[in-house]
Amino acid sequence: MAHNVTRIFAEFLADAQWQDVPDEVRHEAKRTILNFVGAALAGCRDEAMELAVRALKPFFGQPQATVIGRSERPDALSAAFLNAISANVLEFDDTHLPTVIHPAAPVAPALFAISERRPVSGQELLHAVILGVETECRIGLAISPAHYRRGWHITSTCGITSTCGVFGAAAAASRLLGLDPQRMLWAVGNAAAQSAGPIESLGSMAKSISVGNAARNGLAAALLAEQGFTGPEQPIEGTYGFARVASDEADFSAITDGLGDSWQILTNAYKPYPCGVVLFPVIDGCLELRERHMLSADRIAAVTVRGHPLLRIRTDRPDVLTGRAAKVSAQHSVAVAFIYGAAGLAQYTDQCAGDTAVLELRRKVTVEDDATIPVETAFVAVQTTDDRRFECHVTQSRGTTARPMSDAELEAKFRSLAEYGAPTLDAQRLIEAIWAIDDQHDAAKAIRMMV
Amino acid sequence: MAHNVTRIFAEFLADAQWQDVPDEVRHEAKRTILNFVGAALAGCRDEAMELAVRALKPFFGQPQATVIGRSERPDALSAAFLNAISANVLEFDDTHLPTVIHPAAPVAPALFAISERRPVSGQELLHAVILGVETECRIGLAISPAHYRRGWHITSTCGITSTCGVFGAAAAASRLLGLDPQRMLWAVGNAAAQSAGPIESLGSMAKSISVGNAARNGLAAALLAEQGFTGPEQPIEGTYGFARVASDEADFSAITDGLGDSWQILTNAYKPYPCGVVLFPVIDGCLELRERHMLSADRIAAVTVRGHPLLRIRTDRPDVLTGRAAKVSAQHSVAVAFIYGAAGLAQYTDQCAGDTAVLELRRKVTVEDDATIPVETAFVAVQTTDDRRFECHVTQSRGTTARPMSDAELEAKFRSLAEYGAPTLDAQRLIEAIWAIDDQHDAAKAIRMMV
Repeated sequence: MAHNVTRIFAEFLADAQWQDVPDEVRHEAKRTILNFVGAALAGCRDEAMELAVRALKPFFGQPQATVIGRSERPDALSAAFLNAISANVLEFDDTHLPTVIHPAAPVAPALFAISERRPVSGQELLHAVILGVETECRIGLAISPAHYRRGWHITSTCGITSTCGVFGAAAAASRLLGLDPQRMLWAVGNAAAQSAGPIESLGSMAKSISVGNAARNGLAAALLAEQGFTGPEQPIEGTYGFARVASDEADFSAITDGLGDSWQILTNAYKPYPCGVVLFPVIDGCLELRERHMLSADRIAAVTVRGHPLLRIRTDRPDVLTGRAAKVSAQHSVAVAFIYGAAGLAQYTDQCAGDTAVLELRRKVTVEDDATIPVETAFVAVQTTDDRRFECHVTQSRGTTARPMSDAELEAKFRSLAEYGAPTLDAQRLIEAIWAIDDQHDAAKAIRMMV
Repeated sequence: MAHNVTRIFAEFLADAQWQDVPDEVRHEAKRTILNFVGAALAGCRDEAMELAVRALKPFFGQPQATVIGRSERPDALSAAFLNAISANVLEFDDTHLPTVIHPAAPVAPALFAISERRPVSGQELLHAVILGVETECRIGLAISPAHYRRGWHITSTCGITSTCGVFGAAAAASRLLGLDPQRMLWAVGNAAAQSAGPIESLGSMAKSISVGNAARNGLAAALLAEQGFTGPEQPIEGTYGFARVASDEADFSAITDGLGDSWQILTNAYKPYPCGVVLFPVIDGCLELRERHMLSADRIAAVTVRGHPLLRIRTDRPDVLTGRAAKVSAQHSVAVAFIYGAAGLAQYTDQCAGDTAVLELRRKVTVEDDATIPVETAFVAVQTTDDRRFECHVTQSRGTTARPMSDAELEAKFRSLAEYGAPTLDAQRLIEAIWAIDDQHDAAKAIRMMV
């Protein structure tokens, strides 16, 4: 069986029927697109994006595809590259929790680019998103967790998003191009030849290149396969295939078991806060205490946060200087949650990281660890200046699959992201277009609303 | 020391002076370019090239750069991608013997593309070639041979050419762009984010994507760094950097020891025959016996080839059906050497693999192994129909650094490659332009002669 894993999967991809996709899976795909577009709108003016556009603009081809939130109109491959960067650069994108892949960033841009080149219905687009997510997440499951140990990936998730995302983009694009199973297999092989993304890049802009390439190169892999450009017959499972390079013990059953019965997109989660995942229960706890006890910052004498040792190891950083560093600081996150009653993009800027009130409150925050506490939970205790004590225990943070963001919360997130990066855009109209995408004969109509 | 290997190397790259480069190194760089251009001229009409051009043409940008041997004029990034493919696709390119990297295929296309965009002198181009080769080969040395065991690379060399080549292309391009050491370091990091190329691709066209990407993405890495697009500070040596992903035991001293004193390009070798390296001494022996004893095929009753066990394991294939498979067949190579007195591109076509006379002679060839024989040597013994016996012992095959191809032999190879892929081109004029490239104020003049 293991020797033809990719072929079995390619046949599934080519044969899959829209009517076999359950409603909840279809709806989750819309949520994934909504979150993706919001993240891209927020990230589209980030410095990494501006520099990438400046560096690559001289090489843009014919105007073919939308760059979400921007006015440039490059060729389809360049647009795929740029949209993946903007969706991922602020680390506010979706997360497939079992692998920590960000599924949408590589897949959706490849599909959006095709949708503006050939007639694609909203249903076809949604279906391809679902199949692309299925591909990258199943391959990710097959190589986790040995993948992690090799340096491809660690606390952040962009390593595995890049290395596996290129398969998702290639598979999804192949589906939209209507490739037969043999060409689908070649597309996966053409993707394997381009899978890359060491995690040493994290904290630098270089990580964006890997994520951008996952989308661009996945699309190119499918376009090449469409022409008959051959790939290996066993790109994943072969003796020297992707799995061997990426992992010491691959589990190929993760790729083929229950195909068409279970759906990876159902374990996709959306970040409520643009910071490290371990901080989510902490922020939830702070916001809950603030609201329940009307705790203004000036009433706080001390805050103690208690959680899994990873929380302390990764986030006990009282003195962070930049917005980027603040995203992994418990002290900063606690302070902004109490002061602003929010932990959004505006709370993780360089300006906010230097705010006097924030600096003052940060100093009152202590992080304690306790190996018996699961990583998705946390305790937050506040001592007030009038010597009262309030405590909160968050057993599941918002934005996990156990406590998912509601559609209304996702819409609110979308509006705030659009406001941040593309304030002139009609966000509400776009939200409605995305919820109704499966009724569209031409998916490109919704995509062209994103500029 | 190991913690700032990349910075040390980046400073070397930025500070290196042309006048410090010895004459023999400069000359070897010209030989490398000559061999590269010849290989690209031969490969420019290969099926993989035709399909890649067809798939990517709709996305080409402004006409900026030459595709060697062809009339298309795409943007610089696309040209870099395509020229790397054509130079490598026939596996007739150069080989850095200590690592089996093909140094020119990723580096030269990136530099050629820049040379048509900005004024670059022939000396600057040559110097950048030398530094790019130095970069990829030293990084290759640092991660060999553990790299090999992980599936990135094995008998063929395109895996390590891709994974390390992107560093060579990025470094060389950065040098030509005149980047400062910090941006040079970022360029190497931007390259690390794109290093890819599992060897399962071999035998399919997908391997060409990895090699093409090495050139394209290396160039993009430098162009991004030029704009200030940051990379990690320790892209190679960092805890989760390239070396950790690529190798179990990296030797970082290979990157920095003797920088500027020893030159990797001096161990670059050029293939005299477009087939597996282990077959070179066998073909040498056959050609020598044929000439010395005027052995026509009809006089041959039996041929016995004796060599290192790898020779038998890899090439004892009497029944190959295609030109591609013939490239790793001892029986085929022996047969064509005796019948045609040559083992060139024309002898490794599908047509030649089905030739009746070749099939007949193949059946008379036996491969024996002997663990005491070094891999670069071979014995060839011929039994004639009139019962005479001739033997030849080749102690060093042509095309190794111990017995390098002469300039005249390289020129002859160039002419036959040009004749094969671009018969209308004035090969002699181009040869002269390449030998005189260091006298050119504008390197692009020579490059534009390649269409």
